[in-house]
Amino acid sequence: MFSSCWIKTIRHISVSPRILRFYSSDSPFFKVEVVSSERKVQAKKSVAPRFEKKHRQKISDYLKQMATPEIEAQLAPLRAAVKEYGDLIRDLKAKKAPKIDIDKAVVELKARKRRLEETEIALAPKEASFDRLKLEDLLKRRFFYDQSFAIYGGVTGLYDFGPMGCSLKANMLQEWRKHFILEEGMLEVDCTSLTPEPVLKASGHVDRFADWMVKDVKNGECFRADHLIKNSIEKLMNDKKVSAEMKKDGEDALARLEGFDDKDMHEVITRFKFKSPITGNDLTEPIAFNLMFPTQIGPTGDFKAFLRPETAQGIFVNFKRLLEFNQGKLPFAAAQIGLGFRNEISPRQGLIRVREFTMCEIEHFVDPEDKSFPKFAKIADQKLVLFSACNQLDGAPAREVAIGEAVANKTVANETLGYYMARCHQFLMKVGVDGRRLRFRQHLSNEMAHYAQDCWDAEILTSYGWIECVGNADRACYDLQQHFKATNVKLVAEKKLPQPIDVNVVEAQANMALLGKSFKKDSKKIQTALQQLTSEQVTALEEELLSKQIYNLDINGENYPLTPDLLNIKKYSKKLHVQEITPSVIEPSYGIGRIMYALLEHSFRQREGDEQRTFLAFKPLVAPIKCSILPISANETLVPVMEAVKEELARYELSYKVDDSSGTIGRRYARTDEIGIPFGITVDFDSDKTTPHTVTIRHAETMSQIRLPISELGRLISDLVAGRQQWSDAEAKWPKFEANAE
Amino acid sequence: MFSSCWIKTIRHISVSPRILRFYSSDSPFFKVEVVSSERKVQAKKSVAPRFEKKHRQKISDYLKQMATPEIEAQLAPLRAAVKEYGDLIRDLKAKKAPKIDIDKAVVELKARKRRLEETEIALAPKEASFDRLKLEDLLKRRFFYDQSFAIYGGVTGLYDFGPMGCSLKANMLQEWRKHFILEEGMLEVDCTSLTPEPVLKASGHVDRFADWMVKDVKNGECFRADHLIKNSIEKLMNDKKVSAEMKKDGEDALARLEGFDDKDMHEVITRFKFKSPITGNDLTEPIAFNLMFPTQIGPTGDFKAFLRPETAQGIFVNFKRLLEFNQGKLPFAAAQIGLGFRNEISPRQGLIRVREFTMCEIEHFVDPEDKSFPKFAKIADQKLVLFSACNQLDGAPAREVAIGEAVANKTVANETLGYYMARCHQFLMKVGVDGRRLRFRQHLSNEMAHYAQDCWDAEILTSYGWIECVGNADRACYDLQQHFKATNVKLVAEKKLPQPIDVNVVEAQANMALLGKSFKKDSKKIQTALQQLTSEQVTALEEELLSKQIYNLDINGENYPLTPDLLNIKKYSKKLHVQEITPSVIEPSYGIGRIMYALLEHSFRQREGDEQRTFLAFKPLVAPIKCSILPISANETLVPVMEAVKEELARYELSYKVDDSSGTIGRRYARTDEIGIPFGITVDFDSDKTTPHTVTIRHAETMSQIRLPISELGRLISDLVAGRQQWSDAEAKWPKFEANAE
Repeated sequence: MFSSCWIKTIRHISVSPRILRFYSSDSPFFKVEVVSSERKVQAKKSVAPRFEKKHRQKISDYLKQMATPEIEAQLAPLRAAVKEYGDLIRDLKAKKAPKIDIDKAVVELKARKRRLEETEIALAPKEASFDRLKLEDLLKRRFFYDQSFAIYGGVTGLYDFGPMGCSLKANMLQEWRKHFILEEGMLEVDCTSLTPEPVLKASGHVDRFADWMVKDVKNGECFRADHLIKNSIEKLMNDKKVSAEMKKDGEDALARLEGFDDKDMHEVITRFKFKSPITGNDLTEPIAFNLMFPTQIGPTGDFKAFLRPETAQGIFVNFKRLLEFNQGKLPFAAAQIGLGFRNEISPRQGLIRVREFTMCEIEHFVDPEDKSFPKFAKIADQKLVLFSACNQLDGAPAREVAIGEAVANKTVANETLGYYMARCHQFLMKVGVDGRRLRFRQHLSNEMAHYAQDCWDAEILTSYGWIECVGNADRACYDLQQHFKATNVKLVAEKKLPQPIDVNVVEAQANMALLGKSFKKDSKKIQTALQQLTSEQVTALEEELLSKQIYNLDINGENYPLTPDLLNIKKYSKKLHVQEITPSVIEPSYGIGRIMYALLEHSFRQREGDEQRTFLAFKPLVAPIKCSILPISANETLVPVMEAVKEELARYELSYKVDDSSGTIGRRYARTDEIGIPFGITVDFDSDKTTPHTVTIRHAETMSQIRLPISELGRLISDLVAGRQQWSDAEAKWPKFEANAE
Repeated sequence: MFSSCWIKTIRHISVSPRILRFYSSDSPFFKVEVVSSERKVQAKKSVAPRFEKKHRQKISDYLKQMATPEIEAQLAPLRAAVKEYGDLIRDLKAKKAPKIDIDKAVVELKARKRRLEETEIALAPKEASFDRLKLEDLLKRRFFYDQSFAIYGGVTGLYDFGPMGCSLKANMLQEWRKHFILEEGMLEVDCTSLTPEPVLKASGHVDRFADWMVKDVKNGECFRADHLIKNSIEKLMNDKKVSAEMKKDGEDALARLEGFDDKDMHEVITRFKFKSPITGNDLTEPIAFNLMFPTQIGPTGDFKAFLRPETAQGIFVNFKRLLEFNQGKLPFAAAQIGLGFRNEISPRQGLIRVREFTMCEIEHFVDPEDKSFPKFAKIADQKLVLFSACNQLDGAPAREVAIGEAVANKTVANETLGYYMARCHQFLMKVGVDGRRLRFRQHLSNEMAHYAQDCWDAEILTSYGWIECVGNADRACYDLQQHFKATNVKLVAEKKLPQPIDVNVVEAQANMALLGKSFKKDSKKIQTALQQLTSEQVTALEEELLSKQIYNLDINGENYPLTPDLLNIKKYSKKLHVQEITPSVIEPSYGIGRIMYALLEHSFRQREGDEQRTFLAFKPLVAPIKCSILPISANETLVPVMEAVKEELARYELSYKVDDSSGTIGRRYARTDEIGIPFGITVDFDSDKTTPHTVTIRHAETMSQIRLPISELGRLISDLVAGRQQWSDAEAKWPKFEANAE
């Protein structure tokens, strides 16, 4: 659903530089002494090679975002020490202090900066040196994915997946289906992308699913307003000619950008005199641009529709059918895997922000008064890195907490939400996300839609920063109620009362014959509106009718004066055995493309000592191709062995790629490593001499090899793929093999 | 691709009543003697119950379409006999013969009609009595699929799949991926639905992917012109007041409808004075209505795009990347599974004609001069029911032929096409299409696009008639050439020459400096056009330049007069080791929704003796849920056994549904049979008394039961699902179980 984080609907709120806020100069202050003591430790540790400035900067940026509390604890005092001298120098300058004092302070500042940098380099995990260009080159060259319609000049925000990307995605989706739909017994649906306007009007998307955009007044070029402000302020911060005061002002604006409306943004653009970054021309006031792709259904052109911006609405409009399928019982979960479409103003960042994408959404319908989860005990001890709203506001780091504890102390709103967060963590680990680069960040109250009760984004750290990949939201009863209002079709479940109760019913029944005479075609609408009134509203209506002999009924701003003859107030008592409730919805929503991109970054490796040799260390479960088959020579004696290997793999439905090209075995290993094939089967001259015939298997990640009979291949590799065995188990069982030099 | 049959692009040609043409009154004429001899045989056979008239009509309609040659051979003479007397009576009436002669003839006609009907009923297979309403009721009630946005009034041509439909579809797609992509080593791609206008302009869709539509002149209501004509003529045929002559005329028009253009249709509508079937108002002339959904990409509104009407174009625009992925080698096949969108004018027939659908397409790229297929021998003996263009034109029935023979005698154009037809047949059988209701129909030359070389639709017989579900087309080099023309990016493969050859090259090189002065921004376009000229064209150009000192270059209808100074004719010789070729494309294209619908009809059964008890006999491979678990009582002693069964099934990743409701076991069987669960596991009071614990399995289709230990369940059922064992194997191995009365 739309308020869920990476799928933010009320998009006036943009994804903002919140990390900077929480992890830079605002960190708690530490005394210089602490720094000094740290310094010694750091001096010893600083054995990392000297990196060039750009690279140092990158590591520094990375660490600003890297949330592990241990590293942060070591860096915070060093950062504070730098800040202290920065402030001091500004202060000295303001006071017009003697130049010599200022110079001395600058020398100390530089020293402190160097210590910070060296510590950062020493503490930085390998990932911080991640080279995105190298990964991008590999992904393009081996056609994992690439820009769509490139021969026609390409379209930004649209990507085509090639054979490797396709298979990776299919494997991820299959695991998602297994992990959630099958294991949790969810009801899967598959609804259309084409969605009539009234549905998205009810859901709020027609009115509010928009970004603010500014246009170049001369050539009409469009920019997303918040991106333009962010980029312009960042440019300003690096401009030596800009005054400190103005920079401070810019920094403030940046920190508050997330909460800006159109007027605030216009004010900032005007005050800072921001122009088009391309032409330098003036910009218009921010204009709301709806992010849905419009179209029409049918030939007449008057049936307006959109491509769905999320799959969730398809589940809500099918609620009645699904409840019936579940024999009327709550709770139950429905799920959908499908396409979403968003007409981004100016998409960037590769797969992170695209115009057409695959998402997997779950809507778990539950009694609003009982959000406990039967299987919660099974995962209560599971630890998650939680970055709560409190921690964010306090500038405190994320914390690893058992989800049971987090629910018990109300950090996480309820068991159902907590259960899905734990299952989300399990899924992301299964497909190969690095657990050290995963956190659950709670939405701040101003980020959440007014009806939402709690929301936790699974954020994954990539070279683009922390990326919202999954939203886990408690959306209360909002969506079902909206569709009820729009259609007058009750979207409720029945809840058995502990004992039957007598209730007094007060209804306003329309006198349709007279109503028709007075209001013609509107009479149906009036009848419906009367039916929707609560008992309290009917009582109020009755009082007004009695006192004034008229009641002004308001329907969407239009007034209908009703006289007493037009309706009967009916009062009676009835015995209720069940209560009608509108279920609450807990919504986990997965952006598959984003998770896939994070996975690719986290799986990317360079061979030690040969940084040019890059490869992808996928989990076998999701690897696009499970095995390579490499004959050591084109000699015909190897052909029957090759065939036996192929048959064995086919019997276990294991995908393979034969590389019988003439390259050296090492070169062929490198080619297959690049596309993340986890197991390389080599057929050599011993293969047909041994009885039974044997081959070697090479584990791409560690490059270690074992030798085993062909008849054991299928079972071993399918066990390794399913995670029933680890490579170390295989190494323990089968003889190590040392030849076949890389 | 668009000309392929069920995905017909040049849609002015509509799906027409061709079957009527080939299987009714046009059949070869038989003498009355034959009928008499047949009559005796039939009299004996006619033990079928007397059906009401409507039902008899349905069976008759069904048999008119049912292509089995045996049945047709028995019915043809009877039909001819009826026609003979029909003609005779018309003739008598025209000659104003005595009433008594006419009456006598009418009596004989009625007798002949009755004989035909009785024979039809006797010969009709069970499927002919298929009750679509009963199936539709089941599909809706158990939420296989249903109309989208029903609570908002619904949208025609859009359907949502519920849990059962979703799982069925997912299983079919998984099998498709395995059967084609994995087993044939295809390169899968996943491209965007959003497609820029120039791509679809090049492919021909912008100009020609349209249907003719007529509008009610007063209220603007739209009708598909060919459907309106067909329905109106059919109404006319049943109107007793209409003259025989006019009916003959209408029949003629119906037979030629498929080849009609807008003018022909307008002529028919005017001549017959057809009106709107709803209001009786006049109709406009036919207007071309493009079937693609339009939208715009980005905020400016000037980047026009469409939702793709097929997935094929995504493969063509990625041809270069795919060829490179395949290390430059031909042949190779690429495949895509994804959504297609068509803005049908007035969709009907449930899943058969929808506006958003899943398709699976393969583009097999091959040397145009060598379309042999390495694995062809493997399938050469496979028999397919082929309905060749010749047979259609001759009014002869479809014939069962080995595909090897069909390719050898050129009925099917080449091995590659033949191979895919055989594999198509295998796939359809695997998922559960009834082989007796499947045929491959060759396109007639007027149905094929001008560039297509051969096309065979897999047609499946349903209660809607023969439905085109898969197209298998040889599209030659058309698509790649079109995209080359539009982008000037060469979409070719290199073919090694047997030996190097010397070629003389003649090129027209633009003098860009001078060209720029004369033609400004058009000069680039002129340069490109010159580069695209063949050697012959350049030679012709040179001659004209020499003789007239000017050459009029035509680019898309615009004329550019070129003088000799604007270009140089360059001639040289070069040695070629390879030849550039534009590959031919063989395109199998699968409509998943249509196949699924056919499958549902073919799987639908009624219990003998209890026609109200309907069920779905799916192949276990595609069944949405593989097993039910039914405890015979709510007694607590059964709980541990239930848990053991669940664990065993989970270990083999077999989906199951527990039905522990209080209904009788027979009622619960009926509920699970309805949704096509093939295996019912019953836990009874003997289950925990036996050592090891045992349960019974019931085979839904035959209702036979066996008893076996829980520990054997997983392996047996997964073998049954994968087709490694049949139910009869299980029955032979395990003791039969007779209790648990239904």
